[in-house]
This record gives sequence, structure tokens and C-alpha cells, in this order.
Amino acid sequence: MSDRGELLYQVLGYVRPITLDSARAVEQLWRPHGVTVGMRAVLDVLASAGPMTVPGVATLLDLARQGVQRLVNELMAEGFVESQPNPRHRRSALIVLTTRGEEMAARIRRTELERLAEMVDECSEEEIAIATRVLAGLARDIHAQLDPPSGGGDQ
Amino acid sequence: MSDRGELLYQVLGYVRPITLDSARAVEQLWRPHGVTVGMRAVLDVLASAGPMTVPGVATLLDLARQGVQRLVNELMAEGFVESQPNPRHRRSALIVLTTRGEEMAARIRRTELERLAEMVDECSEEEIAIATRVLAGLARDIHAQLDPPSGGGDQ
Repeated sequence: MSDRGELLYQVLGYVRPITLDSARAVEQLWRPHGVTVGMRAVLDVLASAGPMTVPGVATLLDLARQGVQRLVNELMAEGFVESQPNPRHRRSALIVLTTRGEEMAARIRRTELERLAEMVDECSEEEIAIATRVLAGLARDIHAQLDPPSGGGDQ
Repeated sequence: MSDRGELLYQVLGYVRPITLDSARAVEQLWRPHGVTVGMRAVLDVLASAGPMTVPGVATLLDLARQGVQRLVNELMAEGFVESQPNPRHRRSALIVLTTRGEEMAARIRRTELERLAEMVDECSEEEIAIATRVLAGLARDIHAQLDPPSGGGDQ
């Protein structure tokens, strides 16, 4: 039991450095193409989950709505997304990828997957799959521990 | 190769949510004791690595020096750390845990290990150990990809 705690403590020790460095790597890769790390995150969500409202994106990304609105405005200015009427909710438009946005999202995904495929070559794919299960469980159990008021993505 | 990329992409999808939620969990746990998530991080570094300078802590935590200085000031005000002359560097004092700080750091570590030991019970300790190896490799390979100017912890 103490070993499990120590091992999970080690896991937690890696998540923040990886989060910070992967944001920097993304920024270095896509900033020359006019895409910041935040804009990339929104493009990626829209490419994976389809058209969504700003609050929907904010919840998925655990970002403030105002921040997501700003990123969406930047993506619109670059012609990567556009706003469409929302059949379910008059006041909250759907954000949709344009063709240009779809192409950029696909290019980003392809390039990042190629780069990732070169990494951690000392571990097998089975081992990496085990890591995803451990992280899924840790994400679930840490989130479950939070007091309700801080559990939302809206601040 | 494409599978490896996809699997590591999944791994990366967990690191930011875990980073954010574990910071919230730590804040909820220790804020009532006057310790913020930043103060806890500094206490933990000093307990693990021993007396250090502010720039040393900043590098280890990948935080700005000014931010670490502020956290150290807050820890001093609470009596958790004190400043001692640095035999190696006159202008950069060593930050040292007080007895009160040592006790708080030990209590934090013990409590967090106990909580973590209850988590991810669907995975064995061997599997969690595999996850630490995957994450160590990913941290190393993503960091290695960064352009030199962004690789430091000083901003």
C-alpha cells in the first residue's frame, strides 16, 4: 500500500513538467503558422468532437469561458472557424471548423503523431497502453476527491 | 508506429487534467492550514532535496524566480522556512526548513501518500511502475525537442 502511494506520487511528479513542456513544444511548432497552444487546443477539440458551443469547449478543456471566447475570436480572425446558429440553443452559437480549419487541425494532428511515434522507444506499445490505463484511473480518482464547488471548469 | 503515436497522444491527453485537478486537490487539503499549492511545492522540494537557493528551487519547479521568492516570503511569514548564509554564494542565501516546516512537509507527504495509496485500484503496482517509466521517457523526449531558449525554467 505504501508502495502504491509512492509510485503514484512519482507519476504525479511527471505530469506538470510534461504539461508545461508539451505546451512549449506545441507553441514552438505552430506559432509560426499563427496558431498558439490555446488555439490549437480548440481546433483539436472541434476536430475530435465536432461543432460545439463556447461553454462546451470551455468545459472540455477546463478553461474559462472568456478565455475560450478569446481563442475562438482569434481562430475566426485567421479563418479557421466560423459561427453557426445553434438549433438547440438560440443564444449560444455553434463553433464550426472551416475547410481551412479542418486542414490545419489535420496537419497538426498528423505532425504531432509523427513526432510522438519517435518517442519513448525504450517502452513497448503494450507498456504505453498500460500507462494510459493508470493515468485514466488517476485522473478519475483525483477528480472524484475534489469538493464539488471546484469540480467545474468554469473559472 | 502510428499506434505508438496515438497511444502517446492519449497519454498527453491526461497530463493537463491531472495537473490541474491535483493542484486543486492539494489546495483544498492544505489551504485550511495556511499552505497554498505553491507553498506546498516549495516545502516538498526543500524536504526532498535539502537547503537550496531561490534560483535552485525555481529551476527544479520550473517557476519564475520572483514567484518562488514570493512563496518563500509567505513560508517565512508562517515560520515554515528560514534563510541561512550560503557558504558557496554570498549573494544567494540558502532557504532551509524550520522544525515547524519539516513537520508540515512530513505531514503533507504522509497524508498525500495515504490518499494516493487508495487510488487506481484496478492497476497493479507493476503497472503503475511501468507508467512511471513511460512518463519519464516522455518527459525526457519532449524536453529534448524544445528549442534551447525555451528550455530553461527562468521566466
